[in-house]
Amino acid sequence: MALFTKEEALHYHEAPRHGKVEVIPVKPCRNQKDLSMAYSPGVAEACKAIKEDPSKAEIYTGRSNLVAVVSDGTAVLGLGNIGPLAGKPVMEGKGVLFKTFADIDVFDINLDVSSADQLIGVVKALEPTFGGINLEDIKAPECFYIEDTLKKEMNIPVFHDDQHGTAVISGAGLLNALEITNRKAENMKVVVVGAGAAGIACAKFYVSLGVDPANIYMFDSRGLIHKGRKDLNEYKALFAQPSDAGTLAEVMKGADMFLGLSTKNLVSQDMVRSMAKDPVLFAMANPDPEITYPDAKQASPNCIMGTGRSDFPNQVNNVSGFPYIFRGALDVGATEINEEMKVAAARSLAALAKEPVPSEICDMYGVKELTFGVDYVIPKPLDPRVLVWETPAVAKAAMDSGVARKPIADMEAYKKQLTTRFDESRKRIARVVDSYGL
Amino acid sequence: MALFTKEEALHYHEAPRHGKVEVIPVKPCRNQKDLSMAYSPGVAEACKAIKEDPSKAEIYTGRSNLVAVVSDGTAVLGLGNIGPLAGKPVMEGKGVLFKTFADIDVFDINLDVSSADQLIGVVKALEPTFGGINLEDIKAPECFYIEDTLKKEMNIPVFHDDQHGTAVISGAGLLNALEITNRKAENMKVVVVGAGAAGIACAKFYVSLGVDPANIYMFDSRGLIHKGRKDLNEYKALFAQPSDAGTLAEVMKGADMFLGLSTKNLVSQDMVRSMAKDPVLFAMANPDPEITYPDAKQASPNCIMGTGRSDFPNQVNNVSGFPYIFRGALDVGATEINEEMKVAAARSLAALAKEPVPSEICDMYGVKELTFGVDYVIPKPLDPRVLVWETPAVAKAAMDSGVARKPIADMEAYKKQLTTRFDESRKRIARVVDSYGL
Repeated sequence: MALFTKEEALHYHEAPRHGKVEVIPVKPCRNQKDLSMAYSPGVAEACKAIKEDPSKAEIYTGRSNLVAVVSDGTAVLGLGNIGPLAGKPVMEGKGVLFKTFADIDVFDINLDVSSADQLIGVVKALEPTFGGINLEDIKAPECFYIEDTLKKEMNIPVFHDDQHGTAVISGAGLLNALEITNRKAENMKVVVVGAGAAGIACAKFYVSLGVDPANIYMFDSRGLIHKGRKDLNEYKALFAQPSDAGTLAEVMKGADMFLGLSTKNLVSQDMVRSMAKDPVLFAMANPDPEITYPDAKQASPNCIMGTGRSDFPNQVNNVSGFPYIFRGALDVGATEINEEMKVAAARSLAALAKEPVPSEICDMYGVKELTFGVDYVIPKPLDPRVLVWETPAVAKAAMDSGVARKPIADMEAYKKQLTTRFDESRKRIARVVDSYGL
Repeated sequence: MALFTKEEALHYHEAPRHGKVEVIPVKPCRNQKDLSMAYSPGVAEACKAIKEDPSKAEIYTGRSNLVAVVSDGTAVLGLGNIGPLAGKPVMEGKGVLFKTFADIDVFDINLDVSSADQLIGVVKALEPTFGGINLEDIKAPECFYIEDTLKKEMNIPVFHDDQHGTAVISGAGLLNALEITNRKAENMKVVVVGAGAAGIACAKFYVSLGVDPANIYMFDSRGLIHKGRKDLNEYKALFAQPSDAGTLAEVMKGADMFLGLSTKNLVSQDMVRSMAKDPVLFAMANPDPEITYPDAKQASPNCIMGTGRSDFPNQVNNVSGFPYIFRGALDVGATEINEEMKVAAARSLAALAKEPVPSEICDMYGVKELTFGVDYVIPKPLDPRVLVWETPAVAKAAMDSGVARKPIADMEAYKKQLTTRFDESRKRIARVVDSYGL
């Protein structure tokens, strides 16, 4: 698993330029004429045009391609509440992924705030700056209130990736698992362990995919979430079972799916054996899943197992989601990222997994082949085809659900533009990275 | 004066990429190893190091080279209160200048806020993101309270360029004007018209350069500022004369210096003739000064005349200040930009104006020669030597005044590094601009 040493990781961040991004002009400033257009007096023409018609900000500024990755540093990776300064490398890194995979420019916004309402106030004030808001590494349950409020009060897409990223990618895997194991969503018994941002968002999203909420058994650190408990926040309460149905081991009996967002070694082979035939196991604890892939397979050879790890099959990696979801949303001027768009994203990923995989993608992962089946239900995170599958699907869903301010007329032409744009962006990034001798 | 048409200026902003900047990764993301260092799990090493020692954010993130250009859009150029969205092209442009002249990365932060305190709250919350704050185009008198408060409550440099940029550059011109006309600062009678951000800041700065505040006569739109008036805010009150000394025409009599930040055609040739011999006239109204250069010269052939225009001598252009002031401040880890640093900036510019000017700089401006004297008291804005004159001077003043967290041991080596860094940055920008076929 250790692809790098600690020293390599620190050196990567430090040299030759500190940090991971640079803000570079895209227009020439070679002489007085250029400068007088970039700044005063020429810039006044752009200002006046926007003052007259605010929608012109989309073409005269970078706003329509600019996303804020916003964090208060309260739930960074598995490191917990390390604060906004120590969280900055993650937010810069998120920006790198947005740019690398979808040519989206990102300002990472690391906020020293002491309440959810203060964070909301700051992000709302930033609306003229950005075309979209990606909330990141904000602890639950505050993250739910923050996202809900900002979605209501802002006119640009707001998306908390820790919630919906995991939901969409694992949801794609679930769709294919249903097909492979010949199940129907509405009959699935689903056990979720971990009632934080991702756990609750996944459960909600699975409901959007057809799972009956009555069949979802959610555990937090104190056990099963049920109506007899007095310590539930409103988000957990949504998934409260009528009564205490028992321990995890008891509830796992006969379950069709396990979703873990908790800690390693939580699930035993006996528990897996007690589940329904060929169960779905998404064991997402990082870096070590709730049960290892070999142990799960030994207990249930045909189970569909997903983890957060790149060295096991079916890696659930948010990078298969957020770049393309935002790309599609921005390109049609979506005013929000709604449930329809997330479902479309999951369905497009599920569909792509059924396509033959080109050998260069297999090579990228050091495998001979990748064939649709229990060990390949989700496209690989670095599969370049995701761009042209997922992005147009999200754009179309935005149009169909009525939130697109700038509908795309010719989807086929759009797909070609996406590819061209991505290729050019990749070359441009290489030009900059090369200039550092890297 | 019209170097470009309206259509050219709009096209410059629009195509081929919207806006003027792009955020580009500087580290490779070519394969799984790269990605696992840029983001999870490798990024955690940088986070943990910063959590343990917050000063490590300087090397593991881009923060120490990242400045926020912050505006609420209440006083944009000469356009007035056009709001934060319509102001965004200016703030992006400011970022372009920071990058072009000093390799400083800028996120433009355009804020929809309804009070000075709200703006202050937002900017304070942003402290973990940035290494410095450049306030821009915020109306007076709120801008004074905002800057004063942020300077007190933040641990990074805060600088309102509309105030101090004009003060430093015109201050440099004033220093040389004193020498050329054999005047002493403390004996100067100074008339200032315009009591907004720049007018008040200039007056304060001239006091730092030795002018006696009792000899400063400041006018706002209602006339001379004096103690008999009941409509003065606390910033104007600092410059109140004991009593009403008369109209502008009356007060101009015998004045050594006129500083205009008001409107065109305010100053007549008769007024110039009534001033002391060989007066200093900084007529900065944009785009048309309070009196034109030819008119002033006709009335007083040896006057020292400065304007905001590039087609007259002695252009007072803030771009000769902020990039280098911030570069010096960031490079020594200054906790603030104090008066000593601004004075050092002005003195370095004044000193540079006395140096022989290389022919390539004259060529850049289409003139045969530039010789120290009444028509050349300030270095040209595009003079590349400003980088190595002003930046080290600011850095040294930060060290001498005790606000430098990272003093520079070898100033000569630092000057060489500055040049190398600038050359590489310029080439990198060219690589990006070229990729757009521009």
